[in-house]
Amino acid sequence: MNYEEVKNSNNIGYAKLDTDRKSRTGFPEVIFCEGKPDEYLLNIYKTLLEKDGRVFGTRASEEQYELIKAEIPEVQYDKVSRILKVMSTNSSGGSENDVNDKPQKNTFIAVCSGGTADIPVAEEAAQTAEYFGTKVERIYDVGVSGIHRILSQQEKLREASCVIAVAGMEGALASVVGGLVSNPVIAVPTSVGYGASFGGMSALLTMINSCANGITVVNIDNGYGAGYVATQIDRLARK
Amino acid sequence: MNYEEVKNSNNIGYAKLDTDRKSRTGFPEVIFCEGKPDEYLLNIYKTLLEKDGRVFGTRASEEQYELIKAEIPEVQYDKVSRILKVMSTNSSGGSENDVNDKPQKNTFIAVCSGGTADIPVAEEAAQTAEYFGTKVERIYDVGVSGIHRILSQQEKLREASCVIAVAGMEGALASVVGGLVSNPVIAVPTSVGYGASFGGMSALLTMINSCANGITVVNIDNGYGAGYVATQIDRLARK
Amino acid sequence: MNYEEVKNSNNIGYAKLDTDRKSRTGFPEVIFCEGKPDEYLLNIYKTLLEKDGRVFGTRASEEQYELIKAEIPEVQYDKVSRILKVMSTNSSGGSENDVNDKPQKNTFIAVCSGGTADIPVAEEAAQTAEYFGTKVERIYDVGVSGIHRILSQQEKLREASCVIAVAGMEGALASVVGGLVSNPVIAVPTSVGYGASFGGMSALLTMINSCANGITVVNIDNGYGAGYVATQIDRLARK
Amino acid sequence: MNYEEVKNSNNIGYAKLDTDRKSRTGFPEVIFCEGKPDEYLLNIYKTLLEKDGRVFGTRASEEQYELIKAEIPEVQYDKVSRILKVMSTNSSGGSENDVNDKPQKNTFIAVCSGGTADIPVAEEAAQTAEYFGTKVERIYDVGVSGIHRILSQQEKLREASCVIAVAGMEGALASVVGGLVSNPVIAVPTSVGYGASFGGMSALLTMINSCANGITVVNIDNGYGAGYVATQIDRLARK
Amino acid sequence: MNYEEVKNSNNIGYAKLDTDRKSRTGFPEVIFCEGKPDEYLLNIYKTLLEKDGRVFGTRASEEQYELIKAEIPEVQYDKVSRILKVMSTNSSGGSENDVNDKPQKNTFIAVCSGGTADIPVAEEAAQTAEYFGTKVERIYDVGVSGIHRILSQQEKLREASCVIAVAGMEGALASVVGGLVSNPVIAVPTSVGYGASFGGMSALLTMINSCANGITVVNIDNGYGAGYVATQIDRLARK
Amino acid sequence: MNYEEVKNSNNIGYAKLDTDRKSRTGFPEVIFCEGKPDEYLLNIYKTLLEKDGRVFGTRASEEQYELIKAEIPEVQYDKVSRILKVMSTNSSGGSENDVNDKPQKNTFIAVCSGGTADIPVAEEAAQTAEYFGTKVERIYDVGVSGIHRILSQQEKLREASCVIAVAGMEGALASVVGGLVSNPVIAVPTSVGYGASFGGMSALLTMINSCANGITVVNIDNGYGAGYVATQIDRLARK
Amino acid sequence: MNYEEVKNSNNIGYAKLDTDRKSRTGFPEVIFCEGKPDEYLLNIYKTLLEKDGRVFGTRASEEQYELIKAEIPEVQYDKVSRILKVMSTNSSGGSENDVNDKPQKNTFIAVCSGGTADIPVAEEAAQTAEYFGTKVERIYDVGVSGIHRILSQQEKLREASCVIAVAGMEGALASVVGGLVSNPVIAVPTSVGYGASFGGMSALLTMINSCANGITVVNIDNGYGAGYVATQIDRLARK
Amino acid sequence: MNYEEVKNSNNIGYAKLDTDRKSRTGFPEVIFCEGKPDEYLLNIYKTLLEKDGRVFGTRASEEQYELIKAEIPEVQYDKVSRILKVMSTNSSGGSENDVNDKPQKNTFIAVCSGGTADIPVAEEAAQTAEYFGTKVERIYDVGVSGIHRILSQQEKLREASCVIAVAGMEGALASVVGGLVSNPVIAVPTSVGYGASFGGMSALLTMINSCANGITVVNIDNGYGAGYVATQIDRLARK
Repeated sequence: MNYEEVKNSNNIGYAKLDTDRKSRTGFPEVIFCEGKPDEYLLNIYKTLLEKDGRVFGTRASEEQYELIKAEIPEVQYDKVSRILKVMSTNSSGGSENDVNDKPQKNTFIAVCSGGTADIPVAEEAAQTAEYFGTKVERIYDVGVSGIHRILSQQEKLREASCVIAVAGMEGALASVVGGLVSNPVIAVPTSVGYGASFGGMSALLTMINSCANGITVVNIDNGYGAGYVATQIDRLARK
Repeated sequence: MNYEEVKNSNNIGYAKLDTDRKSRTGFPEVIFCEGKPDEYLLNIYKTLLEKDGRVFGTRASEEQYELIKAEIPEVQYDKVSRILKVMSTNSSGGSENDVNDKPQKNTFIAVCSGGTADIPVAEEAAQTAEYFGTKVERIYDVGVSGIHRILSQQEKLREASCVIAVAGMEGALASVVGGLVSNPVIAVPTSVGYGASFGGMSALLTMINSCANGITVVNIDNGYGAGYVATQIDRLARK
Repeated sequence: MNYEEVKNSNNIGYAKLDTDRKSRTGFPEVIFCEGKPDEYLLNIYKTLLEKDGRVFGTRASEEQYELIKAEIPEVQYDKVSRILKVMSTNSSGGSENDVNDKPQKNTFIAVCSGGTADIPVAEEAAQTAEYFGTKVERIYDVGVSGIHRILSQQEKLREASCVIAVAGMEGALASVVGGLVSNPVIAVPTSVGYGASFGGMSALLTMINSCANGITVVNIDNGYGAGYVATQIDRLARK
Repeated sequence: MNYEEVKNSNNIGYAKLDTDRKSRTGFPEVIFCEGKPDEYLLNIYKTLLEKDGRVFGTRASEEQYELIKAEIPEVQYDKVSRILKVMSTNSSGGSENDVNDKPQKNTFIAVCSGGTADIPVAEEAAQTAEYFGTKVERIYDVGVSGIHRILSQQEKLREASCVIAVAGMEGALASVVGGLVSNPVIAVPTSVGYGASFGGMSALLTMINSCANGITVVNIDNGYGAGYVATQIDRLARK
Repeated sequence: MNYEEVKNSNNIGYAKLDTDRKSRTGFPEVIFCEGKPDEYLLNIYKTLLEKDGRVFGTRASEEQYELIKAEIPEVQYDKVSRILKVMSTNSSGGSENDVNDKPQKNTFIAVCSGGTADIPVAEEAAQTAEYFGTKVERIYDVGVSGIHRILSQQEKLREASCVIAVAGMEGALASVVGGLVSNPVIAVPTSVGYGASFGGMSALLTMINSCANGITVVNIDNGYGAGYVATQIDRLARK
Repeated sequence: MNYEEVKNSNNIGYAKLDTDRKSRTGFPEVIFCEGKPDEYLLNIYKTLLEKDGRVFGTRASEEQYELIKAEIPEVQYDKVSRILKVMSTNSSGGSENDVNDKPQKNTFIAVCSGGTADIPVAEEAAQTAEYFGTKVERIYDVGVSGIHRILSQQEKLREASCVIAVAGMEGALASVVGGLVSNPVIAVPTSVGYGASFGGMSALLTMINSCANGITVVNIDNGYGAGYVATQIDRLARK
Repeated sequence: MNYEEVKNSNNIGYAKLDTDRKSRTGFPEVIFCEGKPDEYLLNIYKTLLEKDGRVFGTRASEEQYELIKAEIPEVQYDKVSRILKVMSTNSSGGSENDVNDKPQKNTFIAVCSGGTADIPVAEEAAQTAEYFGTKVERIYDVGVSGIHRILSQQEKLREASCVIAVAGMEGALASVVGGLVSNPVIAVPTSVGYGASFGGMSALLTMINSCANGITVVNIDNGYGAGYVATQIDRLARK
Repeated sequence: MNYEEVKNSNNIGYAKLDTDRKSRTGFPEVIFCEGKPDEYLLNIYKTLLEKDGRVFGTRASEEQYELIKAEIPEVQYDKVSRILKVMSTNSSGGSENDVNDKPQKNTFIAVCSGGTADIPVAEEAAQTAEYFGTKVERIYDVGVSGIHRILSQQEKLREASCVIAVAGMEGALASVVGGLVSNPVIAVPTSVGYGASFGGMSALLTMINSCANGITVVNIDNGYGAGYVATQIDRLARK
């Protein structure tokens, strides 16, 4: 294709939307809003809403919220998690019951965060999982410098099919959680910190080098990715 | 305690063996052999064998094999994975049936590797999972530079409850696998490579930055860790 | 020279324009616009237009477009690739036929990109090559997490004299393409990504460590450089 | 497959040799010897020799030479480039004439090196290209600290279809060569150096950031990769 | 001085021993043995023994122990901490009572370590502090992946005038300890780990970025430095 | 908890204020203002002021000062240190006499800084210590490039129970101070510098590698942390 | 001193101006303007002007120029080098004749730059040297990708007592210059570049690893430092 | 040239010795021995000795000493600096009087080192300068942690035409020396250190970021390079 053909190849710009994705993987398409041009983003929201009856986007700015709202008034924006979503009237409130019809076990995941500054990433994880139909228990502000806080939540952590541990600065939360539970722990380093935290790289290294068993790691601030994997695990546990 | 008390505090040196671990977490203790002093390693093997009827160690050298064999002749050593294990006569051949007695689903995990040089780490992962009672399907030598190799295995990959993707050099295998399956992928970067591979750091970064969904990452060469998490996930799927 | 002499040494500021360059290398001068002071940029555009009948600049901002347009109304700006060019009325529409007069083979290069966010760099490469008289086939949005997309384009990739593979995040596209074709692959890491992508360094390392043969790498976001080398190769193939 | 099946799956260990590779890509298989276990390496050499009538390996040690020689006495070892090859009696002395039968142009590539310590990598590049049937002109010991050395070779550099520039320490050679020629330059950073050369990373960065046009880069010490790409380019020029 | 004068300038080679150091700072000279030439090390031990009646060296190898023992038979070597010391008959067994004659408080420091592999560094810290006359309580094998271990020692930790927290891998121990005590915590990262632990740099970054208050950090494996500072603090508390 | 419960769980947003902290550790809560949302920050200031009669925050912006001042007019802001505090009328002017009632020694700490650009961090350290009831002697602008400046202050440095050495650029100040005193030195690298200073990482490495004894290090620009530890040490010396 | 005393200790804020510096070192004080608070900068300019009859500042912004100009109308600002200076009426136009009265040799230094974007740093170096009384020959736009440009200036380079080589991107200029001259070369890496240039670190590494003799390196963009050292060398040559 | 021609092109292997170098630059050729193959090194020594009457090599091992000694018995080896030299009977004992015949000033350079472990690099610098005919004053063991040591040598430092400051660990020596003298300081970081010293990179960064004027830096452990530049400067001062 030449440049003109590329630009005209579909109604939302250059990208081919993967609208069959859900039937193939059980997961609907999610939009990474940050840095997307206005016209392009608007097209995606309108196209997906028409086709799926709902749209879910991460890393949206308030400006992007205003942009979408002007054409899709029912769009909802959460300032903390920066999630920008449209839920169709006939959609089941986030439940993914349509994915599999058999009676399922009553499972949930837990999302922990070290400090209040880590909550935006934790909420991106939690709300992503909820959008995919997973039940979520939030356990926030349980950083290891006050170890009693996480210890008082041990029972709930142990019941979860999977724990997401979100922490910046030194990122030690994952190791402590990993020692308390027998199900998988997904560690999410955040860019919270200053000085030698290197935008979250320090927390990432802490988590990758964890002495605890059962810990795997996603990219810095990647709450979405953690919510996705946690849902994959929870679905296996649920069936 | 002073230094003398520390040295005398138990019969295997300074460390407290966590012999109740299995009843608490469902996973027996595993020994990281590399760098352990001879006398200390021998003590651990003898103590655990007496108590549990079997011992499993990773990263063992041939010298350590000779050391243990002199006192525990039935010890087995696999040169490729560097696993050094003793299986008790009445143990069920690696099956972890004792963990939960209910009839279970017939699940398995898949372990993929990019090149032949990655096989030692892949085998550490595979044999660790098998030791914990997980069924393993090996899919080796399927690096992305010959993409048909991994594609011809798609069906098996999709059936697995979890896929471990082991790759060094540029580590692209995980992203391709992640796009093929709907269950979790655990990426294991290896130190295979030269020049700007930085002992596996380059592959680790590739995997952490993967554009595919459902990928989490463990430390470089950490086959054991991947086998552990894969077992956690497979157990959830199995129940 | 002292400072005054430097400032007065030519009519466009400090730099000596290399206006004989094309006869020497077969490539006309290209301007890297980013960061150039207004007055200086304007002088370059006017001087080159007068001498060569056309001007081609990369990394131009919209402000720079307005600046040049005020004095050279026929200037064209492409927001995606950030290319700012003036094509003379009697120039052959980008064709470099003047470079060699013999009948030539009908060759082309392919430009692939991983995601939509990589398209600006891909277009910088494609349009640079086109400016140098090379035919370009665009194959966009073929990231490895949906491997069927690149596979469905295999035939075209194999016919190209050279493939430019543009990808950010983990940059695995180059390795997959390298395994599909027998002509050279030029890999362009992009700064697309977040967290541990380190502004494209992670993708650069992936590409430099590629397990596939036939891959060479240019600097992060250096679409221009890739378009230049691809043209060098295509010219060798064309003769 | 389980572990036993993997081990028995072919006669040379775990790997599937890609013996159809040459008909598919025009390039025969090349063996990376470093770190391969003895038994495995021997099997590869014997299998390939039987099938193709010749074998070519890089990064071989003297011990590996002795190993192969004991069973394949006609094997040849070059201490400088560490290449270990067997040329069949009826093979055409490295010429790849069989690849395409048409009369071809009389082209060649040039291999330059900065210092004498870079010659091993330069020879890996040169001999790899020669094995693939490419004519090679060596231009060694032309580092930029004595700029007249490279300048006196300008004519030959300009005639080459492609120039490989091999340099360690600060790696400036590629930029100077890039300014002298109009065909592509493949830059190979070497691990030659000390202190802040970081095993060649410093030279790699120099080359990636080159201000000259037409330069692409391969991994540190990757003479093989450069010889491969140079052959791809030379073949395009030759036809 | 010219080279000859330098070599002859004192009886132990080039260095001026700082034998007045103790009266000035309250701390006797300590020898860093690693890498010191044999003749030079022997001279230092003999010179200091004659002058001070005792010598204390860190990072000594077994070969260095044999070397010194041949001339100073009463020398003692501890394989774990690699400390090589000679205690004079009339020295007060490590007590630094001579430093200040007033009756002092009954204080002590605590030395914690994460895993058994961290014990060599922990012992270097502990024995250094003891040599300087400080009482030491050892609390080993209390890594955060089994959080109950460190929690069961809370009372002792809180009584200490200062806590040294020694840990490799992800180094999270310091943050947990920092949250439990109100006196200063000196964090010592160790080079224990593999993969992305970067020889202890990962643990160092964890500790520097700790979210807990009251934590300061010394260089990787610098048990000596931690023992020194802990003694400085304990002396202030003791007076 | 679900998201609604989290948001409603206390009157200041998501975080649980640790208002018992002072009785437990002897240190009142300190607020890290940077990046805190307006509404949240205001709530914290009002809640703490009501409960403790005073509030102390670090890294506050002028905008945050205006925000708080609108509701708490007596709030004080220091532009240099960016400290934003409210002192209650009946509070003892920063003295922490309530911590321990016994007559205490007359101790103080010293805060040194290399250049004038380091003063903001030095003042964060000094004012933090003063808030915790510690006497502080400031010794500024004593960088090592004019060594007489620090030498002229030796006496005062030696009397201090603890010295905080604040320096950016190459960070050599800590090593020189460490050689002059016998009490602990807390080194604070600052982000002052340019080029290869890497936002303070270069100074941090200098300080971690110091050849002087008695030096420990906190994170880049962490004046608060240094003031905290210095107070811990001074309290031990004071009793 | 307490905080109040610090603030009141002199008339220009916290810093002690080193106004005796020139008689001690032969170099007058130079002001690094970047980041200095307005009031403080103005005080320094006024104080120095009164005492020395001239002031010289580097890294000044246009805003700082306006600030100073409002009170010192004769201040001069050069936008390229960002130098902000006041020359007294009776000062000798930058000549440092007063430093030593003996008749001197007629020496000069050369300042080379790779590209036009490096000129600001080159001018900082050149004008700094001129302020210190050194004659400067500018040789700009002589990057190594067009090697004839620097070669045509060989004679002048060889006559200089010292050459400053300023280059960004790959920084190869210093190595080529180092091979052409027999006097010292001071290499100044600049932050010019993008992608893997890491804000000049790549050029710094190139220069530090140079294979040419006689090259020393200063910090990234440190034109001032290079001009200072070049003057030290030129003064030695001049006497 | 092909490979055979390269090997036969001169009598010492591949390299062209630059035997006219001295008449061109005033500096004779110096051999970097480390890593040179035996036969090649021997050839260089014999060829240079025959032509110049003397040879000077750096980084030589004891094995290389034995190798050369077997054929050139008068060769001298200094274990500390690892310099391996042959001085002809009629050579002027290292003096470079032949370089310029005019009566010269009585100048010298100073070489300082931080600790005894830095002496090998310091001696490489000192003996290189002496070989080039420069007078050298050695000032060793003057690290900044005992600041009185360097201060007691101020007078000599100030008289030197140039000071070489050699230091590992934190490398602060250069900054202190830079503040004491008015002539240039050449800083040589050494690889002495452990932990976060990164093989000297930490000291290199310290020196590059120095707050003192007049400091330039060479590569880690590059004593030869420092001795070379110091001689260039001293020659300028001497004339």
